[in-house]
Amino acid sequence: MPRVRTLVQLRSAVARFRGRGETVAFVPTMGALHEGHLSLVRLAHRHADRVVVSIFVNPLQFGPGEDYTRYPRPAARDRALLAREGVDLLWEPAVTDVYPPGDLTRVHVAGLSDVLEGASRPGHYTGVCTVVTRLLNAVRPDEMWLGQKDAQQALILERMATDLLIPVRLRRGPTVREEDGLAMSSRNAYLSHAERQQAVALSQGLAAAWILMRGGERNAQRLAAAIRREWDGYPLVREDYIAVVDPHTLEPLKAVRHEALVAVAAHVGPARLIDNFPWRGR
Amino acid sequence: MPRVRTLVQLRSAVARFRGRGETVAFVPTMGALHEGHLSLVRLAHRHADRVVVSIFVNPLQFGPGEDYTRYPRPAARDRALLAREGVDLLWEPAVTDVYPPGDLTRVHVAGLSDVLEGASRPGHYTGVCTVVTRLLNAVRPDEMWLGQKDAQQALILERMATDLLIPVRLRRGPTVREEDGLAMSSRNAYLSHAERQQAVALSQGLAAAWILMRGGERNAQRLAAAIRREWDGYPLVREDYIAVVDPHTLEPLKAVRHEALVAVAAHVGPARLIDNFPWRGR
Repeated sequence: MPRVRTLVQLRSAVARFRGRGETVAFVPTMGALHEGHLSLVRLAHRHADRVVVSIFVNPLQFGPGEDYTRYPRPAARDRALLAREGVDLLWEPAVTDVYPPGDLTRVHVAGLSDVLEGASRPGHYTGVCTVVTRLLNAVRPDEMWLGQKDAQQALILERMATDLLIPVRLRRGPTVREEDGLAMSSRNAYLSHAERQQAVALSQGLAAAWILMRGGERNAQRLAAAIRREWDGYPLVREDYIAVVDPHTLEPLKAVRHEALVAVAAHVGPARLIDNFPWRGR
Repeated sequence: MPRVRTLVQLRSAVARFRGRGETVAFVPTMGALHEGHLSLVRLAHRHADRVVVSIFVNPLQFGPGEDYTRYPRPAARDRALLAREGVDLLWEPAVTDVYPPGDLTRVHVAGLSDVLEGASRPGHYTGVCTVVTRLLNAVRPDEMWLGQKDAQQALILERMATDLLIPVRLRRGPTVREEDGLAMSSRNAYLSHAERQQAVALSQGLAAAWILMRGGERNAQRLAAAIRREWDGYPLVREDYIAVVDPHTLEPLKAVRHEALVAVAAHVGPARLIDNFPWRGR
């Protein structure tokens, strides 16, 4: 699997694909890959001739007290996993490849960036939008694949690509889960054995809400209360938020009508975990 | 001269150039064209196979009390001028072509955007950066031409293109002047006869500073004072700022060493005019 570091190398590798008339799908990652990432690579392969993956732990999307320095970086393992998936090009830029000396430019999506994850992590989505704009300008793919697990991130980047007239199609792959339901996340690696067992609370809570909705419940407060009740059985899980929101505006819903995003965040030991499910009325 | 309005039309026209292996230079304008714009078109022609010009009066870069609605829009005259210059493609987007419904995304260059023009016009450069990112994503040119008259704008957009890894080369054309020295500007059209005569104060002041610098003066306060003294003879000219700054950081200089930007802004009747000269030590 070809690996490149600099912008010049990346562009000439992509230009070779383009010169043969091949389409390009892009999967941006921060490494520490799991089945969620690999499922996006497989989806990307099905929809484009070439798949480009980036591994870049973006300092700008981490807050001052967050886990930038200790974020896992298992480079050799990540490369082996991507090679096995037949990735056509791996881009591993240095920080200065993405943030040129003297960098001052930021990209911000108003409103959507200030709620849920954005409320708990000020500046996080400005960091995400700023880096993804750069990655897209570097790779210039036809498609970019994002995970539904980070639903707010996907929504914000869809809005950004539309607004900035970036000629790329954004696509989402479904959340991939462990056998007990825990959403796959690089941050699951932070969990002790006991915390790992209790982390199932997030998906269990969502499952409880889902069952209520299937049964006709539409009241957001009662749905949130059901999730909270579920979490009561897991003392290592500390709620950050439980939200029932409009999936396009992220505004809180009092009652679910046609569509909703049910999203949760919680601290479990040293890890801050998120999960969600999209609801479409039936 | 082919004219297009929508993004789809624009992209297919540019794709035809690209399909023939032709290079593309881009000159973004707000219309109300003068010799300054046309000089950029001529420079663009010399450096690329095809020249694309946009005319778009960008609402986002005008402040609440500014001249967005009364900004001149002589469409037929502009088209004739560009056709005469052999422009290969004119893009005249509607506001909704550049700002899709529900738009929330902004691009900002910190620091550089807050001084000089940015201090007098809050939000102006966020509007400029936001629109130019979109125009560049739409046209995807090899080169973009900007005027030295808007030196701060050119600097900010150069910074932005570098930071966001936009694969475009930014180039500046020199300020084009009327016979008496007044820098060409679409806003000169706002001037009454008496105001037009006094507007020469801006270039006269800069000329006075230039002569002092040629003579060895390096003290920024004395250079500003010389410009102010010159302006004393023009009662219709109200100073906004007179600045001697580092041309890369826009930070005020006490003494000029190798490089400087000497920049002025003044109200002349209903118009707010700017002018500048770059200094390179010799």
